[in-house]
Amino acid sequence: MADTDAIEKAKADYVKWKEIEVESLNSLIGRQLIVGSNMMVARVLLKKGAKVPLHSHHNEQITYILEGALHFHIDNREITVSAGEVLCIPPNMPHEALALEDTVDLDIFNPPRQDWIDKDDAYLRYDADAKA
Amino acid sequence: MADTDAIEKAKADYVKWKEIEVESLNSLIGRQLIVGSNMMVARVLLKKGAKVPLHSHHNEQITYILEGALHFHIDNREITVSAGEVLCIPPNMPHEALALEDTVDLDIFNPPRQDWIDKDDAYLRYDADAKA
Repeated sequence: MADTDAIEKAKADYVKWKEIEVESLNSLIGRQLIVGSNMMVARVLLKKGAKVPLHSHHNEQITYILEGALHFHIDNREITVSAGEVLCIPPNMPHEALALEDTVDLDIFNPPRQDWIDKDDAYLRYDADAKA
Repeated sequence: MADTDAIEKAKADYVKWKEIEVESLNSLIGRQLIVGSNMMVARVLLKKGAKVPLHSHHNEQITYILEGALHFHIDNREITVSAGEVLCIPPNMPHEALALEDTVDLDIFNPPRQDWIDKDDAYLRYDADAKA
């Protein structure tokens, strides 16, 4: 059975971002996922002012900013990652981010973020409209 | 020593595509690499008519076309992957591709393609100007 499962999984998967549901996490952040076997690619859409609170995860992350800019606090540094730029985040390294503009962020993970797949990611599902 | 190495590797890495060398593989294909621990992201620049010959590799691949279009022969299918579209290629699945337009292709691998890092990828280093 295991062999059959493996064969059934081993198909090329052709997908269009425009046909993938955008999951709204809060009023400022939306997200699309493409999940492979050992990698996941997420397209994260952040409105200007969106905050990704300090968090960490065991997954290695590569963040490629396609549009806009995210300001990171990570590794005792302040780094603004703009369109055409990439940030490689090792496993378990705490990081937080602020969208300086409306931003399209491609986040790549190994392994896939099970917490995102399971929607077990309360740190992103805050009320972005609440006053501090 | 291993612990020290691990600590030294665990740094956030901030890079700009425009500052990464474009390696010319042949007259029609250029390539940039960002290599993480267990993932690699490559930005592959293909001129219209560029061919990626039939090949396979043990690495899982996710291909995201940012600009242009690649026509794939894979998994007994013919698939044209255009800008904004993604093809997930399981490990060891043979595939070939033809650039229908000038194309910017983001290729993501797990694990990193050691053959690309080592420039041990003769299948891409052919004379693209040679007549068939």
